[in-house]
Amino acid sequence: MRMWEGSGNQAVMMKIAVIGLGKAGLPLAGVIADSGLEVVGVDIDERKCEDINRGENPIPEERGLDELIKRHGGKDLIATTEYEDAKECEIFIIIVPLFTDENNIPDYRIIESAFRNVGRLLKRGDLVVLETSVPPRTTEERARKWMEEESGLKLGEFYLAHSPERIMTGFSISRLRGFPKIVGGVDRESGEKAFEIYKKFVPNLHLVSSARVAEFIKLMEGCYRDVNISLANELFKIANELGVDFYEARTYANHEYCHIHLPSTGVGGHCIPVYPWFLVKEMEKRDKFGYAKLLRTARQINDEMVNYWAEKIVLECMKINKPLNEVTICVRGISFREGVKELYNSRNLALAKLLSEKGLNIYVYDQFYSSEEVWEMGLRWIEPEDADLVFDSFRLTLERRNK
Amino acid sequence: MRMWEGSGNQAVMMKIAVIGLGKAGLPLAGVIADSGLEVVGVDIDERKCEDINRGENPIPEERGLDELIKRHGGKDLIATTEYEDAKECEIFIIIVPLFTDENNIPDYRIIESAFRNVGRLLKRGDLVVLETSVPPRTTEERARKWMEEESGLKLGEFYLAHSPERIMTGFSISRLRGFPKIVGGVDRESGEKAFEIYKKFVPNLHLVSSARVAEFIKLMEGCYRDVNISLANELFKIANELGVDFYEARTYANHEYCHIHLPSTGVGGHCIPVYPWFLVKEMEKRDKFGYAKLLRTARQINDEMVNYWAEKIVLECMKINKPLNEVTICVRGISFREGVKELYNSRNLALAKLLSEKGLNIYVYDQFYSSEEVWEMGLRWIEPEDADLVFDSFRLTLERRNK
Repeated sequence: MRMWEGSGNQAVMMKIAVIGLGKAGLPLAGVIADSGLEVVGVDIDERKCEDINRGENPIPEERGLDELIKRHGGKDLIATTEYEDAKECEIFIIIVPLFTDENNIPDYRIIESAFRNVGRLLKRGDLVVLETSVPPRTTEERARKWMEEESGLKLGEFYLAHSPERIMTGFSISRLRGFPKIVGGVDRESGEKAFEIYKKFVPNLHLVSSARVAEFIKLMEGCYRDVNISLANELFKIANELGVDFYEARTYANHEYCHIHLPSTGVGGHCIPVYPWFLVKEMEKRDKFGYAKLLRTARQINDEMVNYWAEKIVLECMKINKPLNEVTICVRGISFREGVKELYNSRNLALAKLLSEKGLNIYVYDQFYSSEEVWEMGLRWIEPEDADLVFDSFRLTLERRNK
Repeated sequence: MRMWEGSGNQAVMMKIAVIGLGKAGLPLAGVIADSGLEVVGVDIDERKCEDINRGENPIPEERGLDELIKRHGGKDLIATTEYEDAKECEIFIIIVPLFTDENNIPDYRIIESAFRNVGRLLKRGDLVVLETSVPPRTTEERARKWMEEESGLKLGEFYLAHSPERIMTGFSISRLRGFPKIVGGVDRESGEKAFEIYKKFVPNLHLVSSARVAEFIKLMEGCYRDVNISLANELFKIANELGVDFYEARTYANHEYCHIHLPSTGVGGHCIPVYPWFLVKEMEKRDKFGYAKLLRTARQINDEMVNYWAEKIVLECMKINKPLNEVTICVRGISFREGVKELYNSRNLALAKLLSEKGLNIYVYDQFYSSEEVWEMGLRWIEPEDADLVFDSFRLTLERRNK
């Protein structure tokens, strides 16, 4: 049963497949390889696989990843586009993206395909762990069904667990090495098995009672963040209206029992703006419309912050002695978050587009994007010093350069 | 100008009046007296004043207060019902309750009366500090007007500041001695003056730029708590619906960046359920209806928790083999919070009354209230072991004693 135990050469026998070498998967694969285990990483991006196998890190903004990829890439971390290359693995970690459509409904195609491909390789006694954050019960229902259909095995003959990634791009490796990580099985044996394996490369690991609890923990965290950012945004608007410096007030409001977040143009990225919808939609399906009122309101407040900022920008433009549509406005910072090159759900990009649709003379600037890349987004690039007005979307400052 | 400086006998000259010897004011008065300053405490309750002057603590649940009142009561802490007895004080701290009506509109009568009474005693160079948490601008507008009208002095001839109390009944003395406290003046001189005085008895003191910022800080904290309790309540309902143990999930969701609170029957007391309304109503007055959506939703979710629990209780009663209206139900715990004898805005009391109005056979039990006191609330008392079903309103447990 336990193929990796009782063997004379554990390092050879213990092989782990990581499916998905994106911003969450690659740091994980690197950390696993660095703990002395052999890793086969599977990704659809052929060029990325070649880079990794040459020891080159395709995610330079991830601190410490250069070193891991240089040390293990092409050696004990082999990247490949072929699932077949992972057939000798006994552990499969699935960490691929889950996108949602315009109605915030998850599109399971990528994750289903990953599970079905792994299912075809599955052997008796193998362990599959899902790391992608998913709506509740996905692991025990959908993932189990996909695995059983493809493998011909029944749960009990293989193990299935959930261990939500808790990374943050830029800090993923330190997160894996210090931050508490959770694992929960679809059945008791699966949880224990996953715990035993993950313990080899995650020092701060906790076993919870089920995969469902593990899924819920990750969604709770996302909801906490989204609600608290919406609270910061709401208090920021109120403070401004009252002539109170929000940042001064926040400094002294926060203490051991108070954790007021920072305001923003909204919440972007793959995680925080998406997870509340998993719970909202699930409650709607169950006719519990009143059970997710706060989550829904928080989403709305965060999404509408672009309208708030658009109005502030227009009011500031009116102080410049030019026709409104001739004032050159630079939105500085279009990534969804500072320090990353990532536009998914970017509210800064949404703000630039909103202002542009209003007929204002909008340009953007972002250290991570060239003028060509900006052009491909349907926007125009400018050096901030050449604009009449600069809105810094990370610092939330408005600077009139043309007084 | 500074009557308390340059004097040969500072202890005699430096006299502080504390207006309001309630759960917030009396611990403050005790701490000030214990720092070596003379205190005159003014309160409308004659019997309470007599107790204090005999060295007897009228708030036994306040840790450490017995000792302070024994040591200072009737000596350097004189309690009186007469403002006149405070006429030699140079510093006046106003810490009286601010109630709100059924529409959540503050009733300023008590606070106005305190200010006007102090105004009549006011001398050039005196300092007045408001500690009661109030809607934004109350100190700089209403309080200033009341003081100027009664004293005939203008701001600048006296000093006016705000320093919101941050106590928590039961822990007020340790809060005053360790917790960060904020002070802000209506003008710069007032802030500096108040800071200088408060520094003598508050070790962890911070001067902020205005009384308005100080007011806002306290409201922000209350809003943070109310919104986060409503988030905990919402996630609790969702977890239950999904068959997830909320408490297990919370244990592992919380870490350095995540602070999910505890669920409840709602939020009671004088503070947290009241402060969000100060901001909501202020935004409504200014036609900024969209600026307080989250605060309003959080209030509603917390207030509606009694309906959620009423339904749970009824569903549990249905498992008992008796006609529904004959099942004796005990609501255990009716104070607004565990460990205090205080019913203001108590949602546990509201829950008991709601169930009673539905025609259920409701009784209550609370260690702090006798059967006579319960009777006066229009409710009936029972020993929990004599009920068929016990709902513990602090632990949120339902126990069927009659299976």
